[in-house]
Amino acid sequence: MIKNVRPWAEAQTDITISGDRISAIGAAAGGAGAEVIDGAGAILLPGLIEAHTHLDKTLFGMKWNVNDVGYTLIDKITNEREMKTKLGLDPARQSARQVAISVARGTTHIRSHVDIDTVHGLKGVEGVMATREKYKEFIDIEIVAFPQSGMMIRPGTAKLMDEALAMGAEVVGGLDPSSMDKDPKGQLDAIFALAVKHGKPLDIHLHEPGELGLFTMGMIVERTKAHGLTGKVTISHAFCLGHNDYLVVGRMLEDLARNDIAVMTTGPSGWPCPPLIRTLDAGITVCSGSDGIRDCWHPWGTGDMLERVMYLGERNYLSRDRDIRRIFDVVTTLGAKVMDIKDYGLKPGNIADLMLVDGEALAEAVASCRPRRLVMKRGRVVSRDGAAPFEVA
Amino acid sequence: MIKNVRPWAEAQTDITISGDRISAIGAAAGGAGAEVIDGAGAILLPGLIEAHTHLDKTLFGMKWNVNDVGYTLIDKITNEREMKTKLGLDPARQSARQVAISVARGTTHIRSHVDIDTVHGLKGVEGVMATREKYKEFIDIEIVAFPQSGMMIRPGTAKLMDEALAMGAEVVGGLDPSSMDKDPKGQLDAIFALAVKHGKPLDIHLHEPGELGLFTMGMIVERTKAHGLTGKVTISHAFCLGHNDYLVVGRMLEDLARNDIAVMTTGPSGWPCPPLIRTLDAGITVCSGSDGIRDCWHPWGTGDMLERVMYLGERNYLSRDRDIRRIFDVVTTLGAKVMDIKDYGLKPGNIADLMLVDGEALAEAVASCRPRRLVMKRGRVVSRDGAAPFEVA
Repeated sequence: MIKNVRPWAEAQTDITISGDRISAIGAAAGGAGAEVIDGAGAILLPGLIEAHTHLDKTLFGMKWNVNDVGYTLIDKITNEREMKTKLGLDPARQSARQVAISVARGTTHIRSHVDIDTVHGLKGVEGVMATREKYKEFIDIEIVAFPQSGMMIRPGTAKLMDEALAMGAEVVGGLDPSSMDKDPKGQLDAIFALAVKHGKPLDIHLHEPGELGLFTMGMIVERTKAHGLTGKVTISHAFCLGHNDYLVVGRMLEDLARNDIAVMTTGPSGWPCPPLIRTLDAGITVCSGSDGIRDCWHPWGTGDMLERVMYLGERNYLSRDRDIRRIFDVVTTLGAKVMDIKDYGLKPGNIADLMLVDGEALAEAVASCRPRRLVMKRGRVVSRDGAAPFEVA
Repeated sequence: MIKNVRPWAEAQTDITISGDRISAIGAAAGGAGAEVIDGAGAILLPGLIEAHTHLDKTLFGMKWNVNDVGYTLIDKITNEREMKTKLGLDPARQSARQVAISVARGTTHIRSHVDIDTVHGLKGVEGVMATREKYKEFIDIEIVAFPQSGMMIRPGTAKLMDEALAMGAEVVGGLDPSSMDKDPKGQLDAIFALAVKHGKPLDIHLHEPGELGLFTMGMIVERTKAHGLTGKVTISHAFCLGHNDYLVVGRMLEDLARNDIAVMTTGPSGWPCPPLIRTLDAGITVCSGSDGIRDCWHPWGTGDMLERVMYLGERNYLSRDRDIRRIFDVVTTLGAKVMDIKDYGLKPGNIADLMLVDGEALAEAVASCRPRRLVMKRGRVVSRDGAAPFEVA
């Protein structure tokens, strides 16, 4: 039983946990003899949902890597593929390091895209699977089979993805079918075929901007409809929804909503990106994530999904408490919907995945971003006061 | 003497301070009997320059203010003017609170715009002046007489600004002469006249976007030239330099460089803004700042100029270590040039305003943003390990 907590920063109450589930929310709801933790008036939230990151390739905890990469996407992708070998990047160890940070910050579920290419094969997937197994009491990890180096331009990649999905990767990935592969029909047909074959959802990286991105996005919508994959497709980044054409973007938002295609946005600084309020108002499920953290692309990122609320707020010019409350849905309930997490949320009967953070108001908790007072995974305390949940050698 | 420090994250050495100045940099340069501090291999930087903030109106440390303001600039300005009274905002106390945070994070100089309007008169200026005097051993504060509510649309404001400058405000401010006052000639003639009368520099807020901002900026350039104020004018925000017209922006950058007009950018998320590398390459002095911190406009901000390097990097797609090194110039040397700080920087003979932060590399220090190991103002240690330098009741 955790006494004196404020769910969603609202009225103070108590929450009782039995086994791995919430059994009651309400003052004095706990049975006699329950272990009692004092929440000290902290804000109670369901576990945060990190719906887009790259666990396999963070450099966190390794010797500082001086970044001197070119500015284009292909420069970064090529460099990264080579650096993995040069630096001796171990996906199991590195993913464990990032997971430790995420757990301490209140994340209870991660969707991680994991690189698959013809140089490194399935090493990334195997490494993240090892981490997933080893730390399954701390966090749930979902793996996206992700063709970071392209599919059609690197024959053999589709077969590797097929193997990864057979091994247990939960989601079929994709990457810029037009700009990367120069063959949107080829890549999209291939990944939708994999999704149908394995009965798994899709999460496609789409950095393509403006009209190009809208063109490719239209092809994704068509295939979602044709294969009856309503509610099973996510488009990550979706920069093209930031295109400055009110009507064209509006029609695309309608198409996405009609096919229940979700959108993932990090609230990127500078790049065009989905207008958050408009996208939510269109009835689209929006989730968010940290994307890469301290990797060969850039040195930034902390993996903190509470801090992510601030990025989404700043990028979308949202300062009002009631707008910020809507962003909290993105990093909790809506992210859980995208990941199809069962029994999620602060209700009796649901799984006790939750966190406590001190704060006067939700927006204040974001602005101050204090260490989490307590993080609980399936009814077990996994971190207190921001402490690492486990050590990684 | 501080032993074992790495100036700019380069080779390890020692630094010797005598009185308020650096007397030597180099191993074993200290005289016998000097007090020795072990820098433990930390990065040594000159004091960080916060060249644009609003000390008078942070709500930091006050009861959380639920923000429910409209989205336009005028909504925010009107709301703030009213909330100052409703909340009983005390500019002396609030500016002291923000200064305490800044000092702990290694800032040694602040340029603060301070609101002047016909409702609150010079209360803000008086409050920040009280803070400046009270904490002068901790930090140098420069005050910009800032007509936040407009000048031409609020008669009496120019006279108040004149008084503020006579009282000791160092810089003449301005605000969106076209969009706010609807009288660019009127406002610019008035503020340039104040600058000439008082022999003081100008720092003008220019949020006006695109062609409108470029039009107003052109009028600022003309007056800078006409009054011989080369090197004495800063344009803050300068969003219009983010306008998507390569040649027009290029010509404006040339005009700014020719008249040594500086540009302040926070690296805003979303808004168009000056392209950092292009602006620097044009020979323009670029400085940065936190802008408002947790105020009636928005809940964000920490006042940390090391973190600001990350914002500037993300906004400008800069990830390479050598590009990030250039951003460090913006928050140190170039900011010092804008504020005309004498004897600034890590050289023997200069004032010992400096900070130590742990880190493998400059970019790593930004990404990790640890508490500052030590902050020194004029040869005196004012903070260690991120501790507040003083308490504010």
